[in-house]
Amino acid sequence: MALVVQKYGGTSVGSIDRIRNVARRCLESQRKGNDVVVIVSAMSGETNRLLGLAHQVTALPDAREMDAIAATGEQVSAALTALAIQELGGKARSLLGHQVKILTDGAFTKARIKTIEGSRIFSTLKDGEIAVVAGFQGANERGDITTLGRGGSDTSAVAVAAAIGADACEIYTDVDGVYTTDPNICPSAKKIARISFEEMLELASLGAKVLQIRSVEIAMKYNVPIHVRSSFSEIEGTWVTGEDKALEQVVVAGVAYDKNEARVSIIGMSDKPTAVADLFGSIAEKNISVDMIIQNVSRGAEDRTDITFTVPKTDLAHAKPEIEAIAKGNLGAKEVRYDDDVVKVSIVGLGMRSHAGIAAKMFRLLASEGIAIQAISTSEIKVSCLVPAKYTELAVRALHDGFGLGDK
Amino acid sequence: MALVVQKYGGTSVGSIDRIRNVARRCLESQRKGNDVVVIVSAMSGETNRLLGLAHQVTALPDAREMDAIAATGEQVSAALTALAIQELGGKARSLLGHQVKILTDGAFTKARIKTIEGSRIFSTLKDGEIAVVAGFQGANERGDITTLGRGGSDTSAVAVAAAIGADACEIYTDVDGVYTTDPNICPSAKKIARISFEEMLELASLGAKVLQIRSVEIAMKYNVPIHVRSSFSEIEGTWVTGEDKALEQVVVAGVAYDKNEARVSIIGMSDKPTAVADLFGSIAEKNISVDMIIQNVSRGAEDRTDITFTVPKTDLAHAKPEIEAIAKGNLGAKEVRYDDDVVKVSIVGLGMRSHAGIAAKMFRLLASEGIAIQAISTSEIKVSCLVPAKYTELAVRALHDGFGLGDK
Repeated sequence: MALVVQKYGGTSVGSIDRIRNVARRCLESQRKGNDVVVIVSAMSGETNRLLGLAHQVTALPDAREMDAIAATGEQVSAALTALAIQELGGKARSLLGHQVKILTDGAFTKARIKTIEGSRIFSTLKDGEIAVVAGFQGANERGDITTLGRGGSDTSAVAVAAAIGADACEIYTDVDGVYTTDPNICPSAKKIARISFEEMLELASLGAKVLQIRSVEIAMKYNVPIHVRSSFSEIEGTWVTGEDKALEQVVVAGVAYDKNEARVSIIGMSDKPTAVADLFGSIAEKNISVDMIIQNVSRGAEDRTDITFTVPKTDLAHAKPEIEAIAKGNLGAKEVRYDDDVVKVSIVGLGMRSHAGIAAKMFRLLASEGIAIQAISTSEIKVSCLVPAKYTELAVRALHDGFGLGDK
Repeated sequence: MALVVQKYGGTSVGSIDRIRNVARRCLESQRKGNDVVVIVSAMSGETNRLLGLAHQVTALPDAREMDAIAATGEQVSAALTALAIQELGGKARSLLGHQVKILTDGAFTKARIKTIEGSRIFSTLKDGEIAVVAGFQGANERGDITTLGRGGSDTSAVAVAAAIGADACEIYTDVDGVYTTDPNICPSAKKIARISFEEMLELASLGAKVLQIRSVEIAMKYNVPIHVRSSFSEIEGTWVTGEDKALEQVVVAGVAYDKNEARVSIIGMSDKPTAVADLFGSIAEKNISVDMIIQNVSRGAEDRTDITFTVPKTDLAHAKPEIEAIAKGNLGAKEVRYDDDVVKVSIVGLGMRSHAGIAAKMFRLLASEGIAIQAISTSEIKVSCLVPAKYTELAVRALHDGFGLGDK
């Protein structure tokens, strides 16, 4: 007998038949003796349809009204799911964000959850009912409807699980778990049985398709075990848990790649102490987030240095004028080079902390395939290398198999 | 400078273009110096689409979940209307039933409004914003979403107007007012400029297409003047107001007809005192409402009588077994006759109260066309005759023109 939160994404509730399937799974879990709370997304395509209506009215819709419109998607799917459970002979109630008192801040379209009151959920469970909570939504202190941003239903699920002290939060999706790398480019990729919150956060790009990364932060904070699994099969998926629960610490848990970054190199710039601060201050003011930053040591008497960093590809055009102005002006740089044909390849693993030479092995594996590394950055449990995009598959496969992830 | 409530039905907000038109009208009214509160229905067809989804899940959907689903239609149209007003440079806020605190009882799908708190509307107006309220919906004391039944947006509008003390409640629809009779069957029908609440209630069948009759009851109770008009033109529609405001009391204000009744005649039944009570008690238990009831005097020593009454056509099949059982059993009736090929034709007018001979004139007008009257019922401001359905047009035209309604 456990208290279980189950979350079903848009694909899992994408049709009436699929909603019936969800209802069956909820009831199965209840029949095993569990108290079941279900969080649902909008039926797939519905959120886009609703936002499309708003965009037909105006190019720049007001965020508060957008949220009022978008939240109806989950309202409908939650009520349909409750009906489907009832149709199968079960007892269920749909509950909306403001009814569960999911209190958020007032940042419409990207609200953050402040508190969740469990009482309405508990009284529903006490009546022997399955509580079907509309995901993605909450309400601010005025009672205005807010939404939590894309993938917000995962966040709803984990936050509700934390608030009611659930034993586990099951995230049902259309894939059967988190893989050691993208199976589409590396056929030997394997499903990970158990991974730590920290690793999951660093593997964001692998997990993004199955699990909203913000929800992992909440799960880590409140130590809510997440079970990512397929809504179309019965097999176990991937458990994302606290470190202490991991059965063994593998050195490298997964290989991630990210093609959304572009490289900027400023060559021969002034090495005066304020230069770097000026540069990144100006970029930050444009609300552009910089990822990898590598500064070479100054070249002798010249007092000149090179700096390389990455920005999101989509922001590059927007950032260029600013970068040019500062580089050529204040920094007195010789030239600025751009390259958006790059990929960031990363290895992630808790075991790295106690194993020396992991980064060196990564560089060797890439070098043995003749792949030139353009930039390197490291964290405690992650090493990332920027390489030309054409080597994406080659690099990922070399690292994946080189670190033994493809073995049984 | 007035406080005005405007209500737009499903056809008026049936497309993005029409929502823009609504936004323009709201802003026009605001620019004239009015404080404007707008109530909108769901986009036409949307409520049926949503309920259709529920019916795909289950043949008998739970009423609470139905309401949660149906209410999203108005939530979307209210937010889209607010966006359209903003797009035209105005200020607007959408407000939901539970945000305006439209408190209802717990009768899902046909809830009754108990109280409305005006404070959120007033604070919105104070900010110079147009308050766009989702029609058709409220919330019960637990915070569950309730809906007010078909045409409930009219009820929302009048109830909100009453709660905030509005100077008028404008009901925008796709016709330009209430007519002296149905223009489709009587070409000389004229738009009524002003009519009393009482007459409007008795003319329910004429008004049903333009105005939910329940909303007229609320308007009468709180003395809220209603202005029924077209959302597609600028011309004045029909004012429905308190009696004292009527410019003149016409004898007959309108001619209505109702084809939804079926006649039941029980012939040669026992005349014992409890017979009639037993009969209608049993029918009432089946939740079937009886309209006209005519009992003939007993025929001499036989102690036998005939009774005629009407029930809704849709309930006839359901009521027949009950009626047969009682008539042949307890009442010892000779036979029961049914006729669903009838129409109830009514004349309505406040002036009747002070004018003798109106009913007699009605009977003469019908007789002069050779129309046999099957049953008669009267109220203080209404006379109704049941006649064969084939005479519908003939009867309506004879009465309409006979009472001078077609004249200038």
